[in-house]
Amino acid sequence: MVVRALYPGRFQPLHWGHVSVVRWALERVDELIIVIGTAQESHTISNPFTAGERVLMVREGLRDAGIDISRIFIIPVPDILMNAAWIAYVSIYVPPYRYGVARNPLVVRLFKEAGYEVLIPPAYDREVYSSTKIRLMMIRGDEGWRRLVPPSVAKIIDEIRGVERIREISGRD
Amino acid sequence: MVVRALYPGRFQPLHWGHVSVVRWALERVDELIIVIGTAQESHTISNPFTAGERVLMVREGLRDAGIDISRIFIIPVPDILMNAAWIAYVSIYVPPYRYGVARNPLVVRLFKEAGYEVLIPPAYDREVYSSTKIRLMMIRGDEGWRRLVPPSVAKIIDEIRGVERIREISGRD
Amino acid sequence: MVVRALYPGRFQPLHWGHVSVVRWALERVDELIIVIGTAQESHTISNPFTAGERVLMVREGLRDAGIDISRIFIIPVPDILMNAAWIAYVSIYVPPYRYGVARNPLVVRLFKEAGYEVLIPPAYDREVYSSTKIRLMMIRGDEGWRRLVPPSVAKIIDEIRGVERIREISGRD
Amino acid sequence: MVVRALYPGRFQPLHWGHVSVVRWALERVDELIIVIGTAQESHTISNPFTAGERVLMVREGLRDAGIDISRIFIIPVPDILMNAAWIAYVSIYVPPYRYGVARNPLVVRLFKEAGYEVLIPPAYDREVYSSTKIRLMMIRGDEGWRRLVPPSVAKIIDEIRGVERIREISGRD
Amino acid sequence: MVVRALYPGRFQPLHWGHVSVVRWALERVDELIIVIGTAQESHTISNPFTAGERVLMVREGLRDAGIDISRIFIIPVPDILMNAAWIAYVSIYVPPYRYGVARNPLVVRLFKEAGYEVLIPPAYDREVYSSTKIRLMMIRGDEGWRRLVPPSVAKIIDEIRGVERIREISGRD
Amino acid sequence: MVVRALYPGRFQPLHWGHVSVVRWALERVDELIIVIGTAQESHTISNPFTAGERVLMVREGLRDAGIDISRIFIIPVPDILMNAAWIAYVSIYVPPYRYGVARNPLVVRLFKEAGYEVLIPPAYDREVYSSTKIRLMMIRGDEGWRRLVPPSVAKIIDEIRGVERIREISGRD
Repeated sequence: MVVRALYPGRFQPLHWGHVSVVRWALERVDELIIVIGTAQESHTISNPFTAGERVLMVREGLRDAGIDISRIFIIPVPDILMNAAWIAYVSIYVPPYRYGVARNPLVVRLFKEAGYEVLIPPAYDREVYSSTKIRLMMIRGDEGWRRLVPPSVAKIIDEIRGVERIREISGRD
Repeated sequence: MVVRALYPGRFQPLHWGHVSVVRWALERVDELIIVIGTAQESHTISNPFTAGERVLMVREGLRDAGIDISRIFIIPVPDILMNAAWIAYVSIYVPPYRYGVARNPLVVRLFKEAGYEVLIPPAYDREVYSSTKIRLMMIRGDEGWRRLVPPSVAKIIDEIRGVERIREISGRD
Repeated sequence: MVVRALYPGRFQPLHWGHVSVVRWALERVDELIIVIGTAQESHTISNPFTAGERVLMVREGLRDAGIDISRIFIIPVPDILMNAAWIAYVSIYVPPYRYGVARNPLVVRLFKEAGYEVLIPPAYDREVYSSTKIRLMMIRGDEGWRRLVPPSVAKIIDEIRGVERIREISGRD
Repeated sequence: MVVRALYPGRFQPLHWGHVSVVRWALERVDELIIVIGTAQESHTISNPFTAGERVLMVREGLRDAGIDISRIFIIPVPDILMNAAWIAYVSIYVPPYRYGVARNPLVVRLFKEAGYEVLIPPAYDREVYSSTKIRLMMIRGDEGWRRLVPPSVAKIIDEIRGVERIREISGRD
Repeated sequence: MVVRALYPGRFQPLHWGHVSVVRWALERVDELIIVIGTAQESHTISNPFTAGERVLMVREGLRDAGIDISRIFIIPVPDILMNAAWIAYVSIYVPPYRYGVARNPLVVRLFKEAGYEVLIPPAYDREVYSSTKIRLMMIRGDEGWRRLVPPSVAKIIDEIRGVERIREISGRD
Repeated sequence: MVVRALYPGRFQPLHWGHVSVVRWALERVDELIIVIGTAQESHTISNPFTAGERVLMVREGLRDAGIDISRIFIIPVPDILMNAAWIAYVSIYVPPYRYGVARNPLVVRLFKEAGYEVLIPPAYDREVYSSTKIRLMMIRGDEGWRRLVPPSVAKIIDEIRGVERIREISGRD
């Protein structure tokens, strides 16, 4: 029986911290389902990239890291604003799974209330690896964000002119 | 530049006809995006399987057929009931693509009105390869459906006791 | 610990068959939660009465039958069209409960898939006690529907001129 | 004080029967609000034209008939599936009005339940002037539909290749 | 004819101030409909408790206060984000009523614009009795919240480990 | 062939700055489509007026300015929260058009990504002509707002007692 875990996030954009969680989880389960949340939203400061762009970034970024993509599902899921039913709702969109992967206490709680066990990955350095900080660097014109993400992610962002987009949204351009 | 096409369907369930379309499309583009539509619905006669179950069937069924999964995206998308905006809406959830893949005249039209070129695959025998007929065979207790789908699809349906489910929904069980 | 069960239905309108299920369930649990489904819909042939009118009919109809209303919750819930998450969704709106009450195989299945035990009440005579037949009698002008529902239900329908409403909707008036 | 009435319909497409209702209503009120319902839907057999196409057809068709467009509001409104709140919902989108314009008993009832008086226009010949019949003529290739609609409506349908569209949707083309 | 009033709130959680409004209203009408708003939301700092948990708290809390529950309806209603249609929308879910109960000027206005009279209850001390302050006390670990709510409400919050939940959501636990 | 442009805004309320954009656009196209966005919202500080009230203000305000209303479409459109599909979604509700009219960089970008050319009107003095400032003046009781809007707009706001409404919403009244 294939054992799967579900790892939800927004991945705006994927960074090396996310990659470390994926690697850690794949040591514990056969397959990992990555749910790209808030899939309906894009072109905002918090969510500049579309779900489809994020699907691509996650796949190519994990490939960069040498991760076996055939063990990964990448599933975008739009929001419903009902926390108490959120796990059941997300579970419609994904193959059967045994574990949730989360550190956030609310997400841990929601998995447990829905009857799932939770795998809590070790903390990465959130002062450095943070999508929020990456977006702020992009807005400020600080090129340092490039070393916080896999090279394919930077390449995709360049191809879609993502920095220009987020600067326009923020009123900086 | 990677060239992609988008192939939408409901895949309730995936059958060999679908597989032949995928194979045909992969001869023409680098990567194929398979959109699993009506993703919100399950446990009805027309849509017995959840989106997540269908994601799994599509992936494993294509693997059975020797198709290179690393060239495939499988993306579930819930309905909006606005045909005129449907292509733009679906496009949020998927990586950039150049072609639609469709034979249905309405879907061909929607792709064209949205500015996409359309690849029209050769017809397969819809009298034989038809998800509707497969579901009817399941309801009637006709085991013949098993040879219309890849073996992994039949195996997944067995594991989730899918025939029992559709018979219950139809009131036959 | 209070033991509760959840009994979902549309109650268009409540009839003596429903009352028998409620009575049967109250012999098995401390409190019964009656969920009035498809709460958003009214003024159609299948759903002529509003959720609020149905809340009133259920409460007064059960009172007629001598049922202790203080052991009952009556909760209207609008549809979501996602069967696989429906039980989790309904559960947001109701107090904690242990059992589902259902005979319909799909509803029994959905309760079980969501981790609830199911109490299956004995069948009542669905040839006689049927909301669909009651609505058809109303449309045809057959007063026989009045003996199929508790007297308070008939009184409420008269007060809101419900028969006139359903006849208008059906084009008979 | 300007006196207005609200006339709801789907106008798939506008025909001379609709025009006669508009003319009749403008003899009784200062301004008429035409609500184009089911605005979200298009590219189906029942609703082939988009809301925007219908806005244009209604405006140009009424102009053909010599009606003073400056006394008309044309407002598309998407469906909510809650009949009991429908009038209140539609009223968000339109200027204040005193009367509903309707013959359909359900619509008359909904206006009255929401506290509006209703103007009931004289019947036109629904055997001849019927959007449903016009759409069927288009599907069958019967050019007779052209004399049932104002010339501008036929011209707009030709410009958007509407007959081709509806025939494709119906599987006739 | 039974005279009813409608009292909307979020009741996150019910406190003695709410109880005093209920008592005051029941001196003026036969039956009171308590609408639990924002029913879809839970597990947030502003709305930690589910609609169903709040239904239970309201019923048990009013029982504590010696209020005759058979004169009360407790109806959870999810948000629509259309203020101008909100009263009509809520009215779908509740039995017919004559009065709104509100002090907030916007809510008073919405009831009046929808054609309802409004009963304005005397002010209670909002510096002390405030759901917002109760939630802050829970987050800070101040046990003082317990004397601001009926004992059954505190008991239910303990049973569902509600303080732990809100502290987790707030990042304090 | 009629050339049209689409000008989106919230118009809470219409002011002389908006009028100058309309006048400028009508020098460049045959017809202008004014989309009234966030149409579902009203009775909030940011969106005090209903869509229907805004339709009326825009029409009468443009008439005051001597603009030929027969060249204008005024179409209210409710929000969807999907920026990447927003132009396609709005386009359902309006007649065919060639240009977007916008200065905001995000809106300019969304038009371009959807394949439309953009007409960028000259800036008006946003320190003076600003709906946000007009609403603040109303709340503070500063009558200066009256000279920032066409006289018909002020008259409509008086008739609907709009200043009283916004002051109540803000807690100032």
